[in-house]
Order: sequence, then structure tokens, then C-alpha cells
Amino acid sequence: MSIGAGALSSGPRSHEIGEVSLVGGRTLGHVTVAYETFGALSEQSDNAVLICHALSGDAHVAAGVDDYGTPRPGWWDALVGPGKAIDTEKYFVICTNVLGGCSGTTGPESLDPGTGRPFGLGFPLVTIEDMVDVQALLIDALGIDRLRAVVGGSMGGMQALVWALRYPDRVAGVVPIATTWRLGAQAIAFNEVGRTAILGDSAFNNGDYYGGGQPHHGLGIARMVGHITYLSDESMRAKFGRRLRARDDHAFEFVTEFEVESYLAHQGQKFVERFDANTYLYMTKAMDYFDLCAGFSDLAEVFRGSPVRYLLVSFSSDWLFPSYQVREIVDALQCVGADVTFAEIESPYGHDAFLLEPEAQGDLITPFLGSLIERSGGRQ
Amino acid sequence: MSIGAGALSSGPRSHEIGEVSLVGGRTLGHVTVAYETFGALSEQSDNAVLICHALSGDAHVAAGVDDYGTPRPGWWDALVGPGKAIDTEKYFVICTNVLGGCSGTTGPESLDPGTGRPFGLGFPLVTIEDMVDVQALLIDALGIDRLRAVVGGSMGGMQALVWALRYPDRVAGVVPIATTWRLGAQAIAFNEVGRTAILGDSAFNNGDYYGGGQPHHGLGIARMVGHITYLSDESMRAKFGRRLRARDDHAFEFVTEFEVESYLAHQGQKFVERFDANTYLYMTKAMDYFDLCAGFSDLAEVFRGSPVRYLLVSFSSDWLFPSYQVREIVDALQCVGADVTFAEIESPYGHDAFLLEPEAQGDLITPFLGSLIERSGGRQ
Repeated sequence: MSIGAGALSSGPRSHEIGEVSLVGGRTLGHVTVAYETFGALSEQSDNAVLICHALSGDAHVAAGVDDYGTPRPGWWDALVGPGKAIDTEKYFVICTNVLGGCSGTTGPESLDPGTGRPFGLGFPLVTIEDMVDVQALLIDALGIDRLRAVVGGSMGGMQALVWALRYPDRVAGVVPIATTWRLGAQAIAFNEVGRTAILGDSAFNNGDYYGGGQPHHGLGIARMVGHITYLSDESMRAKFGRRLRARDDHAFEFVTEFEVESYLAHQGQKFVERFDANTYLYMTKAMDYFDLCAGFSDLAEVFRGSPVRYLLVSFSSDWLFPSYQVREIVDALQCVGADVTFAEIESPYGHDAFLLEPEAQGDLITPFLGSLIERSGGRQ
Repeated sequence: MSIGAGALSSGPRSHEIGEVSLVGGRTLGHVTVAYETFGALSEQSDNAVLICHALSGDAHVAAGVDDYGTPRPGWWDALVGPGKAIDTEKYFVICTNVLGGCSGTTGPESLDPGTGRPFGLGFPLVTIEDMVDVQALLIDALGIDRLRAVVGGSMGGMQALVWALRYPDRVAGVVPIATTWRLGAQAIAFNEVGRTAILGDSAFNNGDYYGGGQPHHGLGIARMVGHITYLSDESMRAKFGRRLRARDDHAFEFVTEFEVESYLAHQGQKFVERFDANTYLYMTKAMDYFDLCAGFSDLAEVFRGSPVRYLLVSFSSDWLFPSYQVREIVDALQCVGADVTFAEIESPYGHDAFLLEPEAQGDLITPFLGSLIERSGGRQ
């Protein structure tokens, strides 16, 4: 197999995998997956690493060009590339836009074949398991039986966990980072604030806003809330403190004056330009529904007999998916004698640390991937 | 003096204190203060305790009747009343609705004498200092030279701190609870999310919505965000976990299904019925502007020479105004040899603990108020 072989970056690609049966009971036809690959697949097809993106990510994990040949940085350039921690000279890196996404893979802004119009809220709710099933179908199409590893942070980490449990014979090791085995009430609550902001925006029109303008105001608010949860009290204090923007004293008016206000407004505006509000609804719901333990008596039972190797990483100041939740996964894995390595990285950057602490993560991921090379090759 | 003397509860009252010069430079005429009193003022006028409310509170701190004589519970009934921690059989308790409020005191929904229409955003930005100045003018009108104590939680604690510094000879002791000497970037950020939701609501109409409907959607979102910050990860887990509301399994639709979603939606709706969106803007801005250290080299200098006695209380799980910020006040007070007592109460309830932990607070407040009785009487 040679899709992407020899090329450092494949550029944006897509593949129609056909019909997918969803966990929620519905079936979705003509599913297309947008993906990119980096590096070359080995002759034995045994060096593929799948990287899974978080809520707002896309398939462009590392540097490459866009559809028009323009160079574009990747969302994890710090870790993925030639000679980097996830070395694209060694590994064939694959990254897909998730099912329900808005960057090429079938999602709510895709055309519903039944109506010829965008799905909008007619798109079925998708789960993390559905996202993983779609990735597995793409891996099939790429001629890869078994992945060296699945790596991801945040919602990407949930996908890595599901890979280990749903396709245990198709992946040697997983690296779930800054993630959780299920959201707590506080994380669900923050997601619900974002959804409420979008659903109640007068431009939302029950999700049928394509062609008109999308609900900028609601999506912007959702992103502002999100950003607060991605940072930490400590990092916000260090980054912004109470500094005023372009003024020496208070305006005594309702204007943007603190730097932190300006930062959040900017993040909200930028996001609205590149992300679809409906996809935001679907992604947050997929995270809320995610519960590895559903149907099991306890978390240890979930992992009993798992042949996969695990490297789990958390960050000390992450309060969205706190370290204690990652430790619960580690405890469960240890309880059933699974092969697990765990590190809590000391970092002030909160949840965003998975994007901002490449060195500390690289020091863990590189040897983990290397050790998988020695212990497994091809389908066993 | 005998306003309220003999009566356990005065019921809602108001007093026009006239013109007030604001910290921001503007002057506000015909300022009226809504207040209630509980218990009787002593002949020496030396048993008055002022209680200051938080963002969404009002003058009705303890049980009493409304304008129509209907019994109505108070927001701090657990602590204030006959025989309670703040004993209205001993103390003459006063509580005012703050300047800029929406429960009787002059605020953005009051009529602007210049136009005959509600101020809306024409109302000047007010500060915590302005709120305290207005309270001091009311205290004058009630014939009280010197307060036994000023007590308050959250934004009410800011007022207590300002009382100690702005009117040091008019108050014997202050009890700031679950508060801070200035907001950090994270707390400002949460306030800004709420303001953005209100300001961008299509019903907001630049604050001129009186007579029409107020911006329900935006104010509801602001309240949802607020409530998340008032609780803690721990208390939300205990209170809601991932429990579903009136269902056994997921709906796979965009409906309210987790109990925490239902709780937040309910809190948002209730709030919209009783609170004015413009006041929400003004209160959050007053908190953002609040900075005890502004104009000082460090916090210790702020308190140097303060003759007032301080009882500071924080809660272990409060992450909106974290304990470490209260400790910074305590450290500063100790640094300059001020008379300060401090307790961090172990509680899972987050910021809301100041409403939910009456016993632990009472055990601190009752002896503190008692000790003030022995050490000071009337103006010194």
C-alpha cells in the first residue's frame, strides 16, 4: 500500500467509506473522511501512528500545505514532524477529521443525500465510538491491519482509549493525554453553557443557518467559556493578571479594557470564522455521552484482559480533565495487570498544556513509541 | 433613634439620601436606598450590624414580610434572626440593596430625572466604594455614628473591607467572607462571558429594554456560568454526578437530559424573573474594578494603621475567590500588626459555602461580635 508513501505530507485527502451504523441506532450513508498523512508507510505496514484531534482540531496535525498548495502550520507541529517526538521519518502519521466535524469529514454541514440540503440538526448524534469506527474503516482502506499507536489529547485521548477497547488487536499502544474516562458534572455544565448560548442565538434558526450567517454570538460565547476551562487560574494570572489594554486607567464604560477580556473576545471571533456551530453542539454532546464504564460494574472491568500498552499523561494544573480522573484510569489498569505507564507533568498551563508542553510529552512519547517497535510488528 | 426600634423586622423601607459623588467622577442625584432592619437599635445606638449582600442579593437578609405583608424568607436566614449567630435580639441588623441594584435602590432601571426614562446604560458605572458611601449616608440618616460590625460574603465581603478602610472610625469590626482584595484574570473572564452574553442578546437594545422584555437569553447564560463558579467540582459531582433526569438512557437529541443541565437551566430562568440584566452588568463591573491595592505599593500598606478588628473567613473549595487570596489579606494585616482572626472552613460547597455553612460561620462570627461588645461602645 502506498497512499502517502514517500511523501512527507499527503496534503488534504478524503475517502468515502460508505455506510456507518452508529451507536445511537441510526445509520449514516456516504460517509466521507477527510484525512492527512505524514511520512511513509513501511513495506510491512507496521509503522502507522494515528493521531486524534480534540474538539476544535482537524486532520492537519503537522506542517503541510492546504488545498491550494499554501503552506499551513499544523496544530501539533511541536510534536509531529521529521526528527520530532513523533518522528515522521520513522512513522507514518495519520490524522482524520472526526465524524461530525466541520473540516471535511461528514458532519452537520454536509449535504443530506435525502434532502439535498445540509443536515443541520438532522445529523444524528455521534459518539466517540462512532468516530473511532470511522477511523478504523479508513485504516482498512489504507491497507493497515494494525496501528503502532493511537495518540491524542482531550477528546483525542477519549478516542485513543476507545481504540484500545474496541479494536484491541488492531493497535499496539495508546497514548491518551489530558483526558478522562467520563466527564464530571462540572465539565458537562460548561459544555451546556456553550450549547445554550448557540441554541438560543437568534441566528441559530434551529441549526438551519447555512447560506445565511451562522450564530456568531452564541458560538463566540461557547468558545470564550471553553478557553477559560483550557487555561488555569495560574496561567491566566501570569498571562494577563489585571493588566489593562492600551489604557492607564479604567474607562468607566462597558468597553473591553482588561487584557483577558480582549483575549477572550479575540478567541471567540477567530473561532467563529473557522468552526461550525452545529459541529460544536455535536462534539460537546459526544464528550458528554462518553462513559467508558457504561454497562460495566467498575472501571477495572472495562480494561480486564486488555492486551494493549498504555501511556497515560495528565497535567498538574488541568482542571477540565483533572489528573485525578486520569489516575482513576491508571488505577483501573493496574488493578487488572495491564501494561501501563503514567506521568503527571507539572505545568501551569492547565488543559492546554497538551498543546504547550511538547518537550515533556515528547520525552514520554518517543521512548514509548520506540518500545512498541521492538515488541510488535504487523498484525499478530 | 428609633427607626425600626422594637420591631423585629422593619419590612422594606427606603430613604432618599440625595446627591452622591461617585469615584468614577460623575454625580448621581436623588439617590434612594432600599433597606431593611431587624431587631432594635439600643439607646446608645451602639449595637448596629450592617450586612452587605452579594451580586444577586437584596436588602431582605432575614425573614420578614414583603411590601404586601406576605412572609418572605431572607437570603441569610440561617445566620440572621432571633437567637441566631447574628442575633437580632442583641443586634440592630441593617441591610441595604446596593447602589446600582435592582431591588429598590437607585440603579439602571430607576428613572433618570433628566429624561424621565429609565437610565439603562446611561447609569454611571459604580464601584464598591460608591456602594459603601451610600450605606454610610444611610447610617447617618439612621442616627448611627458607629457600627458594631460590617459583615458580608463575596461582593458583600468587598464592601466590608472597604468599610474598614474608608470609614475606620465608624466601624469596630468587619467580617469579610469568601471574598478577595481584587479579582484575578479568571474571575474577570467569567464576568466578561456573562456580560458578553447580555450585551450581544438581540433583546438587549443597548440596555434600553424596559417596557419590552429584558434579554432573557443572555442573562440566563450569565447566571448559568455564575452558578458553575459558585459550586465546586466536588459538590457538583456529589449533587448531580452524571445522573440523567427522568430517563434511563441517553436521548440522542439536543434536549436537557443530565440533571446538572436541568439545574442550570432552572437557575437561569428563575434569575431572569427577578433580576435586571443591566444591574448584572453594573455589579460585575464593580467587582472587576475593585482593587484594594490600587494606588498602594503593596497590600500591607493598604492596611497600615487600621484600627478596625478583622475576622476573615474563606472556604477550602471556593475556586472563584480562592482561600489563597483571603490569606493574602490576612498576611498583609499581620504584616502591619492589625487585629486579625482568620479561619479557612473545610467545605465541599465552593463559593456558595457562605450561604450553605451557617454553623461553621456562626461559630466564628458570634464570639467575634460578642468580643466587639466588650471592647467598644458608641463612637470612641
